[in-house]
Amino acid sequence: MKKLKTPLEADRLKYNPPLPELLLDLTHCSIEEGSVTTSVADEEEIQKFFPHTFGRKIVSCTKGPLPGKLAPLRIGVMLSGGQAPGGHNVITGLFDALKKLHSDSRLFGFLGGPIGIVDNKHVELTAEILADYRNTGGFDLLGSGRTKVKTDEQLACSLKVIQNLKLDGLVIIGGEGSNAYCAVLAEYLLNHGSQTRVVGIPKTIDGDLQDGMLEVSFGFDTACKIYSELIGNIARDAISSKKYYHFIKLMGRSASHITLECALQTHPNMALICEEIIAEGKDLAQIAEELAEMVYERSQQGKEYGVVLIPEGLIEFIPKMVKLIEELNPLLAKYPENEIATHLSEKSRAAFDFLPLQIQQQLLSDRDHHGNVKLSHIATEQLLIHAVKAKLKQKKDYKGQFTALSHFFGYEGRSGFPSNFDASYCYALGHTAALLIQGGYTGYMAVVHHLGCHIADWKTGGIPITMLMSMDKRPVIKKTLVDIHEEPFIYFDYQRGRWAMEDDYRYPGPIQYDSSSLSEQPTFTLLLRRR
Amino acid sequence: MKKLKTPLEADRLKYNPPLPELLLDLTHCSIEEGSVTTSVADEEEIQKFFPHTFGRKIVSCTKGPLPGKLAPLRIGVMLSGGQAPGGHNVITGLFDALKKLHSDSRLFGFLGGPIGIVDNKHVELTAEILADYRNTGGFDLLGSGRTKVKTDEQLACSLKVIQNLKLDGLVIIGGEGSNAYCAVLAEYLLNHGSQTRVVGIPKTIDGDLQDGMLEVSFGFDTACKIYSELIGNIARDAISSKKYYHFIKLMGRSASHITLECALQTHPNMALICEEIIAEGKDLAQIAEELAEMVYERSQQGKEYGVVLIPEGLIEFIPKMVKLIEELNPLLAKYPENEIATHLSEKSRAAFDFLPLQIQQQLLSDRDHHGNVKLSHIATEQLLIHAVKAKLKQKKDYKGQFTALSHFFGYEGRSGFPSNFDASYCYALGHTAALLIQGGYTGYMAVVHHLGCHIADWKTGGIPITMLMSMDKRPVIKKTLVDIHEEPFIYFDYQRGRWAMEDDYRYPGPIQYDSSSLSEQPTFTLLLRRR
Repeated sequence: MKKLKTPLEADRLKYNPPLPELLLDLTHCSIEEGSVTTSVADEEEIQKFFPHTFGRKIVSCTKGPLPGKLAPLRIGVMLSGGQAPGGHNVITGLFDALKKLHSDSRLFGFLGGPIGIVDNKHVELTAEILADYRNTGGFDLLGSGRTKVKTDEQLACSLKVIQNLKLDGLVIIGGEGSNAYCAVLAEYLLNHGSQTRVVGIPKTIDGDLQDGMLEVSFGFDTACKIYSELIGNIARDAISSKKYYHFIKLMGRSASHITLECALQTHPNMALICEEIIAEGKDLAQIAEELAEMVYERSQQGKEYGVVLIPEGLIEFIPKMVKLIEELNPLLAKYPENEIATHLSEKSRAAFDFLPLQIQQQLLSDRDHHGNVKLSHIATEQLLIHAVKAKLKQKKDYKGQFTALSHFFGYEGRSGFPSNFDASYCYALGHTAALLIQGGYTGYMAVVHHLGCHIADWKTGGIPITMLMSMDKRPVIKKTLVDIHEEPFIYFDYQRGRWAMEDDYRYPGPIQYDSSSLSEQPTFTLLLRRR
Repeated sequence: MKKLKTPLEADRLKYNPPLPELLLDLTHCSIEEGSVTTSVADEEEIQKFFPHTFGRKIVSCTKGPLPGKLAPLRIGVMLSGGQAPGGHNVITGLFDALKKLHSDSRLFGFLGGPIGIVDNKHVELTAEILADYRNTGGFDLLGSGRTKVKTDEQLACSLKVIQNLKLDGLVIIGGEGSNAYCAVLAEYLLNHGSQTRVVGIPKTIDGDLQDGMLEVSFGFDTACKIYSELIGNIARDAISSKKYYHFIKLMGRSASHITLECALQTHPNMALICEEIIAEGKDLAQIAEELAEMVYERSQQGKEYGVVLIPEGLIEFIPKMVKLIEELNPLLAKYPENEIATHLSEKSRAAFDFLPLQIQQQLLSDRDHHGNVKLSHIATEQLLIHAVKAKLKQKKDYKGQFTALSHFFGYEGRSGFPSNFDASYCYALGHTAALLIQGGYTGYMAVVHHLGCHIADWKTGGIPITMLMSMDKRPVIKKTLVDIHEEPFIYFDYQRGRWAMEDDYRYPGPIQYDSSSLSEQPTFTLLLRRR
């Protein structure tokens, strides 16, 4: 039975994302080669891993004769890792571009992430199938997966599948791990005489996959706008009832890009930025003291409410907690839960004893598949509330009422309908990937830049993935953290004193898709970086 | 410094909510009296409490000569209790209606809820002030409060303030408690020779303030649409990554209206409805067994993911938990936390021991101002996950992976920008309140019906608040729970078997405010009830 569409879904399926002017006539799109590249670090070692694909040139799409001969292309595509809004649009963009280049081109989707190519689980993607996924959220068209493809056996299987399907190209939509795999596969294929081109697409809501040429990964825009809708709503609730502090933890792994962007969009009373906390070497007690000081000062003004944003990764940057968890992990395997605390070092025991019972329990019982503590599941927001309460108790002249509620926003933002920005960005990425494959480029990541400008003026091209790499036992793409010397943080730093005391909450509301309401406007992070 | 508006906020401030045709020309609006009323129950006692205002007639707005003489009106207004989207529009609707009736009319807003009138804290509301609040969420224009005004002294203060301000009328925007207070104040004023008319406005996102003539309270529409946006996003995430069960608790106090509406909007795999659970006398073990059975069956189909909706009030309807909490409350005051469990009865001790440590801790430490367990703060969603895990362990041939994440959506939905439905509904309620005061009606609640029809065809009028009352020590308006014999539940019941096993998730997406996308469409609850 065909599912009935919601009104918005029906609307979005009909939407045609605008394209950069350069990509409007794809058959007159050329590729211009720029400067040669190296890697972020460890050049020699990276080159050893990637003898065929290291040091290639940055390329840009320009107007001119189409590169390569115009023949039908057979392309594979897969979604890898956590969801990000816009994934389906990369695929529709790729499909439409392939059909514009040659109507006999065919697109195959591998199912369930990278393992889909190893196991040869695929479907052919047709216009009819894709009609139900245009401008929608989620990765449900193909599913996704996190299984790493790295053994020689898996790579050999992949090669065989690629050969059997006679693929001219393979597009891998994923985060830094998947793009590193993309580079490995490109190198492997060249090394085994295959002419199949492998192109990566930068995906992650966390915004930590970036570089000079790679301004932002897709999904960051939508996720931040969804979280900001909710934070704005909660801020308006706080200032209406005037009785709660809301501690809101936001997804984003180690980096604080999401928290910073949401702070710029909503003006909370405080937003913790991990990168600053590391730079200043603050520990939990200092963070709690700063929060308690703000609560105290606001209380002096008669304000017993507020909004605090906390990045998911915070816990990783509190040295005492990291030490405690390092000690806990081996103990968890060795002793029953109720004995573990007694085996901790004195310092870690003190850190453990300070934690509220709920979090102690979480540390002891909530483990990942390796039996280790799940960092991302620790209720940092509750830990902070607890710590702030303790600090407030020490302030003798504090007479206020500190009542705090905690929230965690993450999964609600990964699979929403993409914003018009992400819809166009992904659609352009899909087109660019098709052009790179047509042009014979492999081991490249498709990129779109000038994203802070009008969509018509966006530029597109490709960068060799090896240029993003450095060594960490093996070649990796390192996450890019918030640069506290860059404009987005500087602006935040300039404003936050006022936001702490005055209530300057900003209410973005739900993402609107009509063209009148500036819904295509990029994130503040992008706009401020352009300054 | 004037705050900068977000693009959506700027758009919404300019929006003119359409009015029912009847209210378009207010100076040609008459009030027609219908049948006399009684109370829901306990007529004699209610009449004793409300000798002046009991048994009055239902009234409807019609075309005809305006009742009363056309003179400037002086009106007070207050917001009471928890936030609901649309509160500001009741006030702008009231203001605009007063100015249409007579340009010299004046509106005064009491600050911080009912206590504002006792303490005479008020501001005069002008067109300029209101220009920043049209079609916005939150109650921040006046603030709100939950302080009950009930002592003779407080009522006497209120009378004095009303007299000093020479108010012709007072509009109280609130839930069932505030509307009961509205009836008390109306009676008190008449009893003391005051001619000031008191009119109530039905507010609460919970949807439990309803009656034949009162189809739904305002705010329910927007809150359900916001929660459904998030549930839809999470469902799409679940079906994409295929590895998590999401247990989502929804605000809504005792009644399950919000959960039922959100289920109709998003088609989760399971939605618990308290009213059915009471009707069938199910306990926690049975609920957990049904959930575990669904997880088991889905696992047989290779599906290790799903979405479960849980009403906030569930905990109140699990007899063993209620018993446990009844026992706990006095013990909490008497013994230290670590001794309490030993003082429980055998049955309650068993119920307590079954709970995960986190929830045990919550029960012992998280108390309200009276020192009692905070029912609404208990993480029922985590309790259920725990119980389902235990049940799955008992299923010997279950080989699946049950990984569950919990969410609670509440505060994000109370102060969002009102949907076009709520914007118009509230704007019409404000107009209706003005007409009732102009017509001399007191102790009435403004109502709008035929809400399932086009806005132009909505009917408006007033009902005596006493008609909603019955006795519970004192006169109260009882919450209306979900009627499991009514169409919304019947339709849900008919569909849910399919939703449990097939994935029929529906993705409503964020509320859209352009007129093209059916954003004015009422809730399924209203549409189905109309059938």
